[in-house]
Amino acid sequence: MMPHRWNENRLTAKLGIDYPVIQGPLGGLSSQRLTAAVSNFGGLGSFAAHSLTPGAIKDVIAEIRSLTSKPFAMNLWVSMEDEGARTADENAFNRSLAPLAVHIAALGAPRPEYKPYSWIRFEDQVRVLLDQKVPVFSFIYGIPPQEILEECRAKHIVTIGTATTPEEGAALQEAGVDAVVASGFEAGGHRGSFLRAAEDSLTGTLSLVPQIVDIVDVPVIAAGGIADARGVVAALALGAEAVQMGTVFLACEDSGASLLHRQALRGKKAGHTALTKGFTGRLARAIHNRLLEELNAEGTAILPYPLQRRLVRNLAIPAEAAGRSDLVPLWAGQSAHLSTCTDVSAFLTSLVEEVSEIAEPIIQWSAGRREMQILKS
Amino acid sequence: MMPHRWNENRLTAKLGIDYPVIQGPLGGLSSQRLTAAVSNFGGLGSFAAHSLTPGAIKDVIAEIRSLTSKPFAMNLWVSMEDEGARTADENAFNRSLAPLAVHIAALGAPRPEYKPYSWIRFEDQVRVLLDQKVPVFSFIYGIPPQEILEECRAKHIVTIGTATTPEEGAALQEAGVDAVVASGFEAGGHRGSFLRAAEDSLTGTLSLVPQIVDIVDVPVIAAGGIADARGVVAALALGAEAVQMGTVFLACEDSGASLLHRQALRGKKAGHTALTKGFTGRLARAIHNRLLEELNAEGTAILPYPLQRRLVRNLAIPAEAAGRSDLVPLWAGQSAHLSTCTDVSAFLTSLVEEVSEIAEPIIQWSAGRREMQILKS
Repeated sequence: MMPHRWNENRLTAKLGIDYPVIQGPLGGLSSQRLTAAVSNFGGLGSFAAHSLTPGAIKDVIAEIRSLTSKPFAMNLWVSMEDEGARTADENAFNRSLAPLAVHIAALGAPRPEYKPYSWIRFEDQVRVLLDQKVPVFSFIYGIPPQEILEECRAKHIVTIGTATTPEEGAALQEAGVDAVVASGFEAGGHRGSFLRAAEDSLTGTLSLVPQIVDIVDVPVIAAGGIADARGVVAALALGAEAVQMGTVFLACEDSGASLLHRQALRGKKAGHTALTKGFTGRLARAIHNRLLEELNAEGTAILPYPLQRRLVRNLAIPAEAAGRSDLVPLWAGQSAHLSTCTDVSAFLTSLVEEVSEIAEPIIQWSAGRREMQILKS
Repeated sequence: MMPHRWNENRLTAKLGIDYPVIQGPLGGLSSQRLTAAVSNFGGLGSFAAHSLTPGAIKDVIAEIRSLTSKPFAMNLWVSMEDEGARTADENAFNRSLAPLAVHIAALGAPRPEYKPYSWIRFEDQVRVLLDQKVPVFSFIYGIPPQEILEECRAKHIVTIGTATTPEEGAALQEAGVDAVVASGFEAGGHRGSFLRAAEDSLTGTLSLVPQIVDIVDVPVIAAGGIADARGVVAALALGAEAVQMGTVFLACEDSGASLLHRQALRGKKAGHTALTKGFTGRLARAIHNRLLEELNAEGTAILPYPLQRRLVRNLAIPAEAAGRSDLVPLWAGQSAHLSTCTDVSAFLTSLVEEVSEIAEPIIQWSAGRREMQILKS
């Protein structure tokens, strides 16, 4: 049976949302207001909680619930640290501080001091999500233990995993997630790869989406480089049942990004992004600026995740205060230039309007084509 | 005025072809038969002539003309060598031979001897294309001198340039080419970047195509990761007026690829590709195999293009003869697994049939959307 309207499918039914449009979790730049704004419109807002303590996560959930009665997603990172994080010593700290120290000093900020690593555990974070019965639990960097996924099913928490390769898509379906995000090379922020190294898992969205559609039965959500109606329509043609957009929402006034960052996303330089491990210790996409270039230079010592992230904050905070966009991590995907939106509701209204003009015949074509493929095989 | 049929647009009219489907030039693995087969079907066959002498190019053109009366493209590389190619000495040769020598010896092939570099000039190659008045001249790695483009216009040779970033698209339009290929990260073979380093010009097809469509007035041809009807329809939704597909044709029986290579494209390992400079000295995508991994290892000495290409042939030829697919450059894009075609005509017939079911409303939507954007701006 075909749905009567393009925006109603098995995924929107499962999630209880009106439009198959998901706001990407935006790393540390989520905001409760943005999450609620997207959900209130009828999409699915997400909040990235991976850097928060369990107590802080509980507060965030309560705040989002005070702003919307609609479903929303809380996003976590299944893998929370890289090898060596617990053994990296003060010498390693000083080696990685060296390329940043000159900028920190020039900004008049205090030289950061080495502190032993204190960690947050995924298990403690996810416990809050389970206890609070959040509507949707989305995650990157791996697959949660089976007992967690089972508890989600028992509590009717919808689970969304993230794949950067076809193999990761297959592994997620095998684990029993409700939907898979196919996260293409173009996407901003972190590459949540977990089967091969992130550097060796880079797949373009146009290639990744149909490959995952071909091997999983659960709905596929296309992510990476989608920023306007053309990208949404292309994703539907590729067989996706929803899209996830990050950068376009990061540029909106409600996001947790600074004014400096939001202005950079609308500026000329946003057309040139690059991947780096220098900002956090894990591979991620941001606008190509001086800091990114310096940290990508051969031989630069990068601490294991999350130590590098904590180290770079010592520069990012004073640099941002000084308006130095050349020295701040400016997370961005490759399609920042495709959208100039600043207001969530205005953007989504116009997006839905444009997509509605063409989506239904495409979805019917896509479904018919898939049936034909199944008959042939 | 909207075209009456999806496959008829200003680009197909200019090229004199029936379907906006271009066979990618396939580097050194072109074949006259494949080029003619695609053109005879009503698409545009291409032949990559960059490694041939002017005399050999003249022969190829004559052979293609004996196989088809339809338009076809001859493809050249505007930049034919990298810095240092003319000064690399025997020591450099020996350093780069080292990681290959053990495999060459194990295969019982003779150890290659250093020979001074002899080069082929783009200017001499393009002269043959001009004198032979080929229907289409396509190129990568730069923009030909103005006088060449002017001679093309005077002789009614259609010119197609290749862009890997929006900036390259703008530069090509400025130079006056007739159409621009937007070549995304997913594509197999060489990344023809010319404004920034190829490593710093990697843009996913889904993001690159609409960005170039937004800044050029000439038709945009989407390339990279397109291997079935879904990819073609997605490309049309993104605003492309044609698609270029390489890997899917490389896997066809008529291509210049070896049986070993064609079998690899249909095998499980084709799902894992990577970029390397190790095979030729310039960044290119191929199936991830032992040779690729060894040459990508940190500290490996790679000769400047085209010296590395010539060096690696000393291993590739005996390895191929021995059926050692782990030691041969197996060029491939990221979507090899989306198609299982082996026959050009069967593939194109089914592709056109599938695309025809949905293409017209998408093209109308795309055109209407563009008009609206122009009115708004």
